[in-house]
Amino acid sequence: MVKRRSKKAGLPPGSLVHVGSASPDSPVRVRATFYNQDNITESVIDCSGPVDIIKTEENLWIDVEGIHRPDVIQNIGEQFKLHPLVLEDILNSLQRPKKEIYDNFVFIVVKSLKGKETEQVSFALGKGWLISFREGSSQIFDRVYERLRVGKGKVRGEKVDYLLYMLLDGIVDDYFIALEELGDIQEEIEQRLVNVGAPLEPKMLPEIYGLKRRVLSLRRAIWPMREVISGLERDETQEFCPSIKIYLRDVYDHVVEIIDIIEVHRETSSNMLELYLSAVNHRVNEVSKLLTMIATVFLPLTFITSIYGMNFEFMPELSSPIGYPGVLLICLLLSLGMLAYFKRKGWW
Amino acid sequence: MVKRRSKKAGLPPGSLVHVGSASPDSPVRVRATFYNQDNITESVIDCSGPVDIIKTEENLWIDVEGIHRPDVIQNIGEQFKLHPLVLEDILNSLQRPKKEIYDNFVFIVVKSLKGKETEQVSFALGKGWLISFREGSSQIFDRVYERLRVGKGKVRGEKVDYLLYMLLDGIVDDYFIALEELGDIQEEIEQRLVNVGAPLEPKMLPEIYGLKRRVLSLRRAIWPMREVISGLERDETQEFCPSIKIYLRDVYDHVVEIIDIIEVHRETSSNMLELYLSAVNHRVNEVSKLLTMIATVFLPLTFITSIYGMNFEFMPELSSPIGYPGVLLICLLLSLGMLAYFKRKGWW
Amino acid sequence: MVKRRSKKAGLPPGSLVHVGSASPDSPVRVRATFYNQDNITESVIDCSGPVDIIKTEENLWIDVEGIHRPDVIQNIGEQFKLHPLVLEDILNSLQRPKKEIYDNFVFIVVKSLKGKETEQVSFALGKGWLISFREGSSQIFDRVYERLRVGKGKVRGEKVDYLLYMLLDGIVDDYFIALEELGDIQEEIEQRLVNVGAPLEPKMLPEIYGLKRRVLSLRRAIWPMREVISGLERDETQEFCPSIKIYLRDVYDHVVEIIDIIEVHRETSSNMLELYLSAVNHRVNEVSKLLTMIATVFLPLTFITSIYGMNFEFMPELSSPIGYPGVLLICLLLSLGMLAYFKRKGWW
Amino acid sequence: MVKRRSKKAGLPPGSLVHVGSASPDSPVRVRATFYNQDNITESVIDCSGPVDIIKTEENLWIDVEGIHRPDVIQNIGEQFKLHPLVLEDILNSLQRPKKEIYDNFVFIVVKSLKGKETEQVSFALGKGWLISFREGSSQIFDRVYERLRVGKGKVRGEKVDYLLYMLLDGIVDDYFIALEELGDIQEEIEQRLVNVGAPLEPKMLPEIYGLKRRVLSLRRAIWPMREVISGLERDETQEFCPSIKIYLRDVYDHVVEIIDIIEVHRETSSNMLELYLSAVNHRVNEVSKLLTMIATVFLPLTFITSIYGMNFEFMPELSSPIGYPGVLLICLLLSLGMLAYFKRKGWW
Amino acid sequence: MVKRRSKKAGLPPGSLVHVGSASPDSPVRVRATFYNQDNITESVIDCSGPVDIIKTEENLWIDVEGIHRPDVIQNIGEQFKLHPLVLEDILNSLQRPKKEIYDNFVFIVVKSLKGKETEQVSFALGKGWLISFREGSSQIFDRVYERLRVGKGKVRGEKVDYLLYMLLDGIVDDYFIALEELGDIQEEIEQRLVNVGAPLEPKMLPEIYGLKRRVLSLRRAIWPMREVISGLERDETQEFCPSIKIYLRDVYDHVVEIIDIIEVHRETSSNMLELYLSAVNHRVNEVSKLLTMIATVFLPLTFITSIYGMNFEFMPELSSPIGYPGVLLICLLLSLGMLAYFKRKGWW
Repeated sequence: MVKRRSKKAGLPPGSLVHVGSASPDSPVRVRATFYNQDNITESVIDCSGPVDIIKTEENLWIDVEGIHRPDVIQNIGEQFKLHPLVLEDILNSLQRPKKEIYDNFVFIVVKSLKGKETEQVSFALGKGWLISFREGSSQIFDRVYERLRVGKGKVRGEKVDYLLYMLLDGIVDDYFIALEELGDIQEEIEQRLVNVGAPLEPKMLPEIYGLKRRVLSLRRAIWPMREVISGLERDETQEFCPSIKIYLRDVYDHVVEIIDIIEVHRETSSNMLELYLSAVNHRVNEVSKLLTMIATVFLPLTFITSIYGMNFEFMPELSSPIGYPGVLLICLLLSLGMLAYFKRKGWW
Repeated sequence: MVKRRSKKAGLPPGSLVHVGSASPDSPVRVRATFYNQDNITESVIDCSGPVDIIKTEENLWIDVEGIHRPDVIQNIGEQFKLHPLVLEDILNSLQRPKKEIYDNFVFIVVKSLKGKETEQVSFALGKGWLISFREGSSQIFDRVYERLRVGKGKVRGEKVDYLLYMLLDGIVDDYFIALEELGDIQEEIEQRLVNVGAPLEPKMLPEIYGLKRRVLSLRRAIWPMREVISGLERDETQEFCPSIKIYLRDVYDHVVEIIDIIEVHRETSSNMLELYLSAVNHRVNEVSKLLTMIATVFLPLTFITSIYGMNFEFMPELSSPIGYPGVLLICLLLSLGMLAYFKRKGWW
Repeated sequence: MVKRRSKKAGLPPGSLVHVGSASPDSPVRVRATFYNQDNITESVIDCSGPVDIIKTEENLWIDVEGIHRPDVIQNIGEQFKLHPLVLEDILNSLQRPKKEIYDNFVFIVVKSLKGKETEQVSFALGKGWLISFREGSSQIFDRVYERLRVGKGKVRGEKVDYLLYMLLDGIVDDYFIALEELGDIQEEIEQRLVNVGAPLEPKMLPEIYGLKRRVLSLRRAIWPMREVISGLERDETQEFCPSIKIYLRDVYDHVVEIIDIIEVHRETSSNMLELYLSAVNHRVNEVSKLLTMIATVFLPLTFITSIYGMNFEFMPELSSPIGYPGVLLICLLLSLGMLAYFKRKGWW
Repeated sequence: MVKRRSKKAGLPPGSLVHVGSASPDSPVRVRATFYNQDNITESVIDCSGPVDIIKTEENLWIDVEGIHRPDVIQNIGEQFKLHPLVLEDILNSLQRPKKEIYDNFVFIVVKSLKGKETEQVSFALGKGWLISFREGSSQIFDRVYERLRVGKGKVRGEKVDYLLYMLLDGIVDDYFIALEELGDIQEEIEQRLVNVGAPLEPKMLPEIYGLKRRVLSLRRAIWPMREVISGLERDETQEFCPSIKIYLRDVYDHVVEIIDIIEVHRETSSNMLELYLSAVNHRVNEVSKLLTMIATVFLPLTFITSIYGMNFEFMPELSSPIGYPGVLLICLLLSLGMLAYFKRKGWW
Repeated sequence: MVKRRSKKAGLPPGSLVHVGSASPDSPVRVRATFYNQDNITESVIDCSGPVDIIKTEENLWIDVEGIHRPDVIQNIGEQFKLHPLVLEDILNSLQRPKKEIYDNFVFIVVKSLKGKETEQVSFALGKGWLISFREGSSQIFDRVYERLRVGKGKVRGEKVDYLLYMLLDGIVDDYFIALEELGDIQEEIEQRLVNVGAPLEPKMLPEIYGLKRRVLSLRRAIWPMREVISGLERDETQEFCPSIKIYLRDVYDHVVEIIDIIEVHRETSSNMLELYLSAVNHRVNEVSKLLTMIATVFLPLTFITSIYGMNFEFMPELSSPIGYPGVLLICLLLSLGMLAYFKRKGWW
């Protein structure tokens, strides 16, 4: 991840360079949606040349799908007077979630989940307009389009800040699905760990380790969003989000809840590593016990028989008829005695 | 737990969906209780249709037992002008404890203990009325009903905020019982761990681990309640809780005390894991010592006897009459010498 | 400890129930001491009925020895208009150290050391009077009585807040003695741990563990006292402690110092656990080395002799006169070679 | 590093002594660059005598390459009225990053990366002038010179504070390259660790340890820069940085991002140590299993054969024609049985 | 250390008792130095009786060498109107570093390094006078005397607060020397740890442990000095330190730097313990491997030869002329095969 970021080092500030994994040839689609309580107009904007959008009194949502073409971002940026540093941040898909307030708009970067990866979504919220920047398709956006078109609920009657809220709410809610999946994996590993009889597969170690890393990466994505959302709630952005303060508080609660669960996962995955280590140590103990029992039983027996394997001429026992059964009996008693001893020590 | 929560992801904000383990068929009971110094009137409200409650000058307590039916919650919410997001939180039984202040009421979510599980209890406290939302029966609530009916103590002469205090106090006090139980389990495991002679049962590991998880889950339930209670104490809720500030401070002290004890439990259960690991290592050491002693005694002896088991023609010792007893004597002396050596090293 | 606390769960708020280990039959003694620069009057108060204390312009110290009788506490509380919640806290000997400011007095709970246990001492400081609540006798209190009677130093000429300071100072200073004792135990365990040659006694583990728990319990007792003392120093209690601000700063310094030392003890006892684990591991290593040396020397030798123990008819070496001494020589050289190898590897 | 610093201990405050690894004979070059929108004048200043720089209304950048000669630093310091303590800090190349505001200038110390080492760069920013102090050549500076000369972008039209921003931006961006390299090393070690079959090379331990130290040293260099940059953003330096507030916020975001990544690296390298330890333990377990299997199979077999190696006269089996094949069969069956047992236990 | 402190417990507040390791018979020397830009007068004060110092308009430095005689401290305290609690703190050489502001002076306690120990130095800074209290001789003080006498630099022309600064600067700078020494020891231990071939000496454990303790004790001495120095910088002491604010900031930077380095040392010494543990585990692994290889090679061989050591009458191989060389060949091939197997597994 850092690798891609480092290619920007050395460029002058404000250089518009795309940083990310998207192929430069993947398509870019820019959609403009005007809506109010009664009407909704959707159109696709041609981005090859300068963009010209007539602002009306309606709510305007510009949705940019594909953030890998600096020229498109720049065209839109010029139209809406976005600061060059903002454009740089939009193009850098490895940006940390953040919130910045400019004179004419609020700029927000968040991380949306896409499979096991996170994907950057940026928003610029002005008075009466919202621009969203994202890479590739997203179910969250599709659902919001659907609700806008159907016109059910509050969405059409509210301002664009409610639109922003709906998108943020969808992005945050997705984390619960990822956490559910993590929880399933964790439970499954745990089950195997706690199952005392089963063999310890060495591949469990990388599995636990991988789990830990995924928890860490989720944490890194969601943690700064706490600050972002709570920043939006405060008065300084009053101008741009007049009506959704109470809703942002709800999103904020969800973010805090997710962080809470992630912290539990983090602690649990550390515990699992300890548990694994303990289990390995316990197996060493078991194995050593078995070895010790075998050696303790058979080394003395072999010593006894090796005595009577000696070739001395004067060994009176050798010619006794009870010599052989006697030795066998001694061996039997000795081994029974030792087994009883181990039994009493609770070794098996 | 997260699994149930994730079913809400993708729904539009404000969707009233029950999140929790309660069966949708379990009964719902809504009780309204009017009371003042002199009288008390209890009635059960029919929730199948719209709810209509006449507010009088008396204190009113609406107690909703069963939070799995969105329609009931919505009916009550409309009657008391609760915000849709509040209704959503009431229905979501996996909500984090929190406190929110609205124009006409304060909304509180806390976690009550029920056996080994936590159960969500929500309160909406307005001027002259308190609504409580909970799933299933609760001894804490039964006790408060009892006190109200009997009319002993301050409860009938005070406002509904005192009622809220009594319920919060009961919920918080229950944690002490859970902690006592945890302490007993912990002590019992510890006793077994510290008992050096006893065998190390491998099932102790999952036990310790389970203890640790239960401590963590208690912690997750009680920790945010600190913020909730201290928030109620502050001036901003003066309007709704005029008379119980000093009592809330008492509940706050209890919460802090519980958190304190939980932190001790947390540290102790980590210590127990270390103790377990040390004990396992110590056993490995003991087992290895036994093995080493056995091998050190018998390998040389067997070597000596195997010398005289060789079939060389020219072995003068073989024909000597003191050969056999000599070897036995050497073996005896050698093993006594080694035992003395191990004794001096303190190995047994 | 928690066990006793949990018996209060379920009782209505404000129930005066004693929580603690003191037997309900142990005696209760209430002493009233009036003093000024010139005179001192001590009397024992009869607590079987209502208490009636005439306040004069002198300083008044009520010292309640025995906090297990709710009726006595209630009588005194009524006389001095103490809030019911304060009385509840006084009776609950498992209270966390705290400071509360009421209109007519300041209420303080601290933990005094008594042997290995902590004991609760509560103070109510009004204008011109101080009430102290404690269980059993205390050298700290005896010393203060002595100083009051003798009238040396500042104590008789100052107000009751100076009396409170002297008691707090004595209570805090006692912790240094406990820390000294802890330090001795720690040093002694450490000495044994670091002594490489000595055998590792398995009982050291519970010892270290017990040390760790005692440090934790001390920490839990002293940590909140920091907040208590610094709270007294601040302006809000100006009314009750007009003259001892500079002295409280001194006590505060001592508390901080004790916390400092406890943190060092805490880190050290964790280190000792690690040290113990390392030592156990090191012994396993030593034991394994011995075993390996024994096996490496004798297994090959026994193999060689077992070759010539075979009964093949055609074994030319068997009939050679140098066969036997040759094998012995080979065995000798082989074992010398291996010992040299182990010597070079630094194994002994 | 500390070693060089300690040579200053004992000198009176304000002693101008160079602390660092640069040789006192390495050359020193001081360049003065005047520029505005239209022109740029570069000159090399002779530092053997007193420095005399005529300030014009243009922007002035003094770039001091080589900070090991106290006389040069002192000459420049006198010319620009820099405080003696500032000169001391410039000469001490082991200074912690910091920001200090004087009446006539702002003083900043940051750490620039140079290979695996960090190098100190100091800046004094006055009104209309910027002095930079550094040791040895730097690509970051070369690039800025290039941009100044070419006059592209904003740089020539802005004040000297924009120049400072460009230099800081370059220095911070370089950390991404170092982090990329660290990430590569980490990934490579991890790959080897997780590869279960491969042997555990003991040199991996120092490698992981070295990685951990490098992460720590990077952290130590970048952490205080957060404070430095955020300090510049605040109002107090308004006078000196009137136009770059929004740009500094961008640099600040980068610093926070770097710290974030470093924290992840830190956690990961701790995990790797645990992983290594687990892997070692796991190998011990595997080795012990093999040993136990070998011993468990062959010790009983050898015992059986040693029985029939005894020389008793009365051993009926010896003369039986099926004795020999019988024993061989028993041995075979026994070993097969044990292998089946180990197979079922999942040992191989 | 705590042991000596505990002897004060039980004494009434304000008791002047020396707490420290200095012998009561060691000499005490009190020197008074008056100085201004032009003159300097040094004299030794007789402390057996009451001290009488005439204050002039010059700067006065009273330097008390030897703080173990309560009478001397009391005499001086009375002369300069120092609060009794201050005198108590001066005599208690185990005081935590702190800063206290009184009406007529500022009181500072810091820890100076002396070999491996820390030594307490206290300062009382009034208007025009500075009193320093210390035990035994000190190079730092000697150097300041030298500078005062020679009159070079700013020292004679400045007020006594500059004198305080010079002493603090010297005390803080000494820590760099101690850190250098610690760094050397650490590097040397590390070198031995990382050297894979060398034997693990068990005495390394106490060495690492001792290092860790020394780091902790340094940390405990320097950490509170941060607060002390930053407290002096703030406005409240403006009266006493009018001219050295900018210099104190410099000392503060040094303290922060030392704390930074100590934190790195702390982390490194924890790492070293882990490294040691890993190394021990690795050796166990190596030793076990050798044992397993030996047993795996020789146990089967011995079994084979023991077969042909059996005394059955019907063993056709025994009479075959290729029996003996055949068995030897099988043994050779078997052992070569096993060695190849171990080779491939990378065991040697």
